[in-house]
Amino acid sequence: MKITALRARDVRFPTSREMDGSDALNLGDYSAVYVTLETDGPHTGYGLTFTNGHGTEIGIAAARAFERLVVGRELEEITADFRGFYHRLTQDPQLRWIGPEKGIVHMTLGAVLNAIWDLWARREGKPVWKLLADLTPQQTVDCVPFMWITDALTPDEALAILERHAPTRAGREVEMRRDGFPAYTTSTGWLGYPDEKVRRLCREAMAQGFTHFKMKVSADREGNLRRAALMRSEIGPGRRLSMDANQCWDVGEAIEQVKALARFDPWWIEEPTSPDDVLGHAAIARAIAPIKVATGEMCQNRVIFKQLLQAGALGYCQVDACRVGGVNEVLAILLLAAKFGVPVCPHAGGVGLCEYVQHLAIYDYIALNPSIENRYCEYVDHLHEHFVHPVRVVNARYQAPLEPGYSIEMKAASLDAHEYPGGSVWRG
Amino acid sequence: MKITALRARDVRFPTSREMDGSDALNLGDYSAVYVTLETDGPHTGYGLTFTNGHGTEIGIAAARAFERLVVGRELEEITADFRGFYHRLTQDPQLRWIGPEKGIVHMTLGAVLNAIWDLWARREGKPVWKLLADLTPQQTVDCVPFMWITDALTPDEALAILERHAPTRAGREVEMRRDGFPAYTTSTGWLGYPDEKVRRLCREAMAQGFTHFKMKVSADREGNLRRAALMRSEIGPGRRLSMDANQCWDVGEAIEQVKALARFDPWWIEEPTSPDDVLGHAAIARAIAPIKVATGEMCQNRVIFKQLLQAGALGYCQVDACRVGGVNEVLAILLLAAKFGVPVCPHAGGVGLCEYVQHLAIYDYIALNPSIENRYCEYVDHLHEHFVHPVRVVNARYQAPLEPGYSIEMKAASLDAHEYPGGSVWRG
Repeated sequence: MKITALRARDVRFPTSREMDGSDALNLGDYSAVYVTLETDGPHTGYGLTFTNGHGTEIGIAAARAFERLVVGRELEEITADFRGFYHRLTQDPQLRWIGPEKGIVHMTLGAVLNAIWDLWARREGKPVWKLLADLTPQQTVDCVPFMWITDALTPDEALAILERHAPTRAGREVEMRRDGFPAYTTSTGWLGYPDEKVRRLCREAMAQGFTHFKMKVSADREGNLRRAALMRSEIGPGRRLSMDANQCWDVGEAIEQVKALARFDPWWIEEPTSPDDVLGHAAIARAIAPIKVATGEMCQNRVIFKQLLQAGALGYCQVDACRVGGVNEVLAILLLAAKFGVPVCPHAGGVGLCEYVQHLAIYDYIALNPSIENRYCEYVDHLHEHFVHPVRVVNARYQAPLEPGYSIEMKAASLDAHEYPGGSVWRG
Repeated sequence: MKITALRARDVRFPTSREMDGSDALNLGDYSAVYVTLETDGPHTGYGLTFTNGHGTEIGIAAARAFERLVVGRELEEITADFRGFYHRLTQDPQLRWIGPEKGIVHMTLGAVLNAIWDLWARREGKPVWKLLADLTPQQTVDCVPFMWITDALTPDEALAILERHAPTRAGREVEMRRDGFPAYTTSTGWLGYPDEKVRRLCREAMAQGFTHFKMKVSADREGNLRRAALMRSEIGPGRRLSMDANQCWDVGEAIEQVKALARFDPWWIEEPTSPDDVLGHAAIARAIAPIKVATGEMCQNRVIFKQLLQAGALGYCQVDACRVGGVNEVLAILLLAAKFGVPVCPHAGGVGLCEYVQHLAIYDYIALNPSIENRYCEYVDHLHEHFVHPVRVVNARYQAPLEPGYSIEMKAASLDAHEYPGGSVWRG
């Protein structure tokens, strides 16, 4: 099956109008670089990278730059040497200069590679999590880019992790199909929401069965304390409350703020400072223990995750499905987390991220980390109506998706209406 | 003086045809996102970010994304709160998602900010190094972005560094105007050059007064040893020979390769592994001491430099003039290096990088680090003929540029001929 065309569309949802997704530094219109891979066979592949309004058009330019490396290739040729293909795309002797493996070019690569995984899964008639769970340990390792991480994880070590858990995979697959994967909710505590809305959303989420909630914090110390008191009083002492700073603090400020917030019993502190700051996260983690640090949604690649783990900076690994280099690089990060014994709690929300990461969380539990303790996949209740196969969260658990592919195909009418700037939502 | 338009051109030079610039991972056509800021006053501002062929067009899209944040602003309003302006561009609540401060968007920001510095210097009638040297310590600090680095360098500490060296600035300015700044040459040892060409270029460079040479190394251990022997035999034991791996090794491989190459007395080992790998560089630095590690040309921002310094990973700081956020972020990095006592040896070459970094090296010596010991600015003898005011290197020293601005304006005929894909060099 040959890839005959790569199409990219700039799709934007006007979420900033309602302050959905508002946090200390971001206020965006949830958007996507939406990639379609056409083939000469019966299947089409879909992938996207999540963006936040302005700048999505730069991703469209990046998608075009990958055309010469992708179009004309056979799916079977790619999957037979997926690691080699990954490196040809990320280490192109010219394109690598504007990376390597970071920023909008790498994010767009995530959309392209995920579209190839979608295509592969459709051809196999399986959801991506099941395609992955059915690969042999060696087939899995052959998809993983190990460049620059062998000081922390060698291919042999990765193989050993996969082989150790292979005999018990089947039981966990049954469990996931029956029970689903635990979710926590971020929908309750956006920074721009008025107090009454936060109270109402907390009550609704508790009624839906959620036991783990997240709130946004900012540079405003008094405001943080006030809102933390509000959230904690609504959910009570027995449920989990995580706090997300979205990078707004310097290292010293983070330590002071978290110490002040400690009396509200935060489960984790998310993105306390720059996503590039391995040593900063390590210093914060040491200072605020036993409260754990979580980060990952804006960590650019496996080299950053490797260091966060080596430095003991990461309490929870919040890998994103499309900021890094697609399923291939996600596999590297999941394997690193498994080696270092750090639970993976994937980042979701935005548009399509929940649809993506349910596959990753379920696969990780089945194949790499057979403990459900302290494992949660983020859930945000926006924009699912635009997907052909939206997530199903029942009693605060992601139900395992069963349709072939990566669940990221959007409805044609949604794409047309939200295409920027020509779609009906954006005209006038 | 109001900025009335931001124009960006995709300019490419076909350097790959002669294997100029060939190294372990890169083989490019030296290129630039060339930015022009038009004003309602007598001056025009010029800036560029260096790229390597494919992907330059993505930078053009990024430049357009900055238009809404730059066009219509007064130069005086920007320079009166340059730190605030920097943060408005780098922490835009939508655009920051595809960064923050990394990849092609941040590189293009470097071009835009440098064009503003060029404009400011032209209005003052000074070269950029002199504009900087004439700022008071407080004015300088007010241009610097401190977000995310205050755990290593506070504004007060930066001010103290500047004030400490202010009384002796004048003497070093006289010295720089008289003697220039020492250069080393990279033109001798590109990976794709045949042995005879390397021998000839070494002899020519020695005749020009160079005492410090750089060669490229790769994954090929035998080849590295053979070429190191050749270079060392040509330049003799008394001159300095640095080696540049351009990121091609993993951490363990880097240590083994450098130990094998140690008998050729390398002055520094440059880019031994991923530019994102702070802990990896620290491990390499510990293992190969007293040989020093150098890196910087692909380090994405001040947060990475901060950590390399905190970790003791950096023997020489090779800041680039346009990968990071223009003069503003370069100032943060120079101040960090000064605080940690690490010599700055800026990255140059490509197209326009020598023209840029001569200003940074001269300013750093005058204002921040009053020692010339072990200080070299990289020099590569390509493509200077395309600049209105090209660098002048005499007896292996950069002569202080005296024309107003940042020396980065290119000749109109060169721009027209090399514009991609329509210029005469690229047609047919």
